[in-house]
Amino acid sequence: MPRFSSNHLETLLTAVDTGSFEAAARALSITPSAVSQRIRAMEALAGQVLLQRAAPIRPTTAGETVLRLARQVRLLDEEASRALDGSGAAVPSLPIAANADSLATWFLDALVEVRREADVVFDLHREDQARTAALLRDGTVLAAVTAERRPVQGCVAVPLGIDRYRAVASPAFVDRHLPGATSGRDVLARLDAVPLVDFDRDDDLQQGFLRRVVGHAPRSPRHFVPSSADFARAVELGLGWGLLPESQALEPLAAGRLVELAPGRVADVVLWWQHWNLRSTLLDAVTAAVRRVAAEHLRPSPV
Amino acid sequence: MPRFSSNHLETLLTAVDTGSFEAAARALSITPSAVSQRIRAMEALAGQVLLQRAAPIRPTTAGETVLRLARQVRLLDEEASRALDGSGAAVPSLPIAANADSLATWFLDALVEVRREADVVFDLHREDQARTAALLRDGTVLAAVTAERRPVQGCVAVPLGIDRYRAVASPAFVDRHLPGATSGRDVLARLDAVPLVDFDRDDDLQQGFLRRVVGHAPRSPRHFVPSSADFARAVELGLGWGLLPESQALEPLAAGRLVELAPGRVADVVLWWQHWNLRSTLLDAVTAAVRRVAAEHLRPSPV
Repeated sequence: MPRFSSNHLETLLTAVDTGSFEAAARALSITPSAVSQRIRAMEALAGQVLLQRAAPIRPTTAGETVLRLARQVRLLDEEASRALDGSGAAVPSLPIAANADSLATWFLDALVEVRREADVVFDLHREDQARTAALLRDGTVLAAVTAERRPVQGCVAVPLGIDRYRAVASPAFVDRHLPGATSGRDVLARLDAVPLVDFDRDDDLQQGFLRRVVGHAPRSPRHFVPSSADFARAVELGLGWGLLPESQALEPLAAGRLVELAPGRVADVVLWWQHWNLRSTLLDAVTAAVRRVAAEHLRPSPV
Repeated sequence: MPRFSSNHLETLLTAVDTGSFEAAARALSITPSAVSQRIRAMEALAGQVLLQRAAPIRPTTAGETVLRLARQVRLLDEEASRALDGSGAAVPSLPIAANADSLATWFLDALVEVRREADVVFDLHREDQARTAALLRDGTVLAAVTAERRPVQGCVAVPLGIDRYRAVASPAFVDRHLPGATSGRDVLARLDAVPLVDFDRDDDLQQGFLRRVVGHAPRSPRHFVPSSADFARAVELGLGWGLLPESQALEPLAAGRLVELAPGRVADVVLWWQHWNLRSTLLDAVTAAVRRVAAEHLRPSPV
């Protein structure tokens, strides 16, 4: 690996984070042509193009390798400066991805625990699991809560537990769309003819559940509500039925604002914590807090 | 405009919505080569390339025009079939964009009102205002709640009201980061040195507020929490201060879980309802419900 200067690495990171040489120049208080020169110098050293000059700027495959390095060096550097210089140095920023349901339920509690002990800000990315691996791979994030168990190269994967989903709907929805359905079997047989709330077109959780239950490709009319808390509210308001994680479903079920459609039929998602294999006090503290809080909120992992 | 057959229009829509010819073929129960033939026939008729064969498939500029047409024809067709055929026809699906804060607060209530009267499913897109105009323009959505007041060509813009944001933080956050700040003026002078919760890098609401308040580019350490309900929770949990819409702030302020940092200093966002100028009973019903519910939740619009 060629030795890049740390301000060149910082320039590359800023260009990718801001999306253009002009915005990076403003953020770094240098001229756009100085940004451009630094990137060209890095590319000469690497012997490869690192950035696609598009709008927004995107790293090439070689650029992703250097970005990953840059992100790690920045964190280690911020931690060291903070240790040496106390409150004078910049507060370290930790980029982390999480699936929408974890972010909406237990994940913030873990971050609050870390913040009690350490000065740090969190740069959260809400992504579905397919994208999470890409964000780890290209160095956008240093850690992620994900359903992907295969460790991304250079990462460690730790099981966090099972997030259990239950099929629920509002009582008014059941009265309108499933009148006279007295047993779970009745409900399941009619479930693919009534409106469903889906997260987005990439989310296969309810479609997969329906396929297993009805035995064919489902034909349900589908609402799309691409935000976890709003998704839960759309189900409570009776727009459609949906699978909710227990952390969102149990309280409204107990209060009678939701009813369970298919008791005993659940969808389990095993969640993992993947993080870069990096000696960082901060990352270690986040890992410890995430494991602790996940253990309180999720069912024990089978692995 | 050349006359496209309605199943060709449907094929184009499905290819863009599913992202590939293969997935479109599965959804339409035809072969991928039939999908490809239909698209080529449409391109021959239009005399222009309509789709970029990338992964995922994207419309060209000419393709966006045809998509917009396709989306409108589909809705009118679904409405007509429904009127003729009752419950035998497919439930119409209405694609709508909304900014994250409206979606998290009042917007779903309007959709629930519509659903009481009509069978319809909603295909919601959560987007910041810059992207909303693009989604209207390229025909991905037929209507949007947006801060963009200039009507997109072919659309009507109706003012909905003002969403007022207040600068708030948890009492614990104030004790830790702003000890001894007794007046609003004290707080404002120190506000750009304490952690801030931001939505994402495209959201300029709090940065703009800080610039106005401190008179220079802010240097705050920033958390990023890209989901509206989670953003509000991050502020309540004390990760940082933030601007919350009154619909999220007033209850926790009254209960003492949040305190207002700068009474009298607010950020106002005027929200608009932009919709395609289209004779559709459903779209008219949504427009009426959105205006009614917005009037209950927002401050009266100045325009």
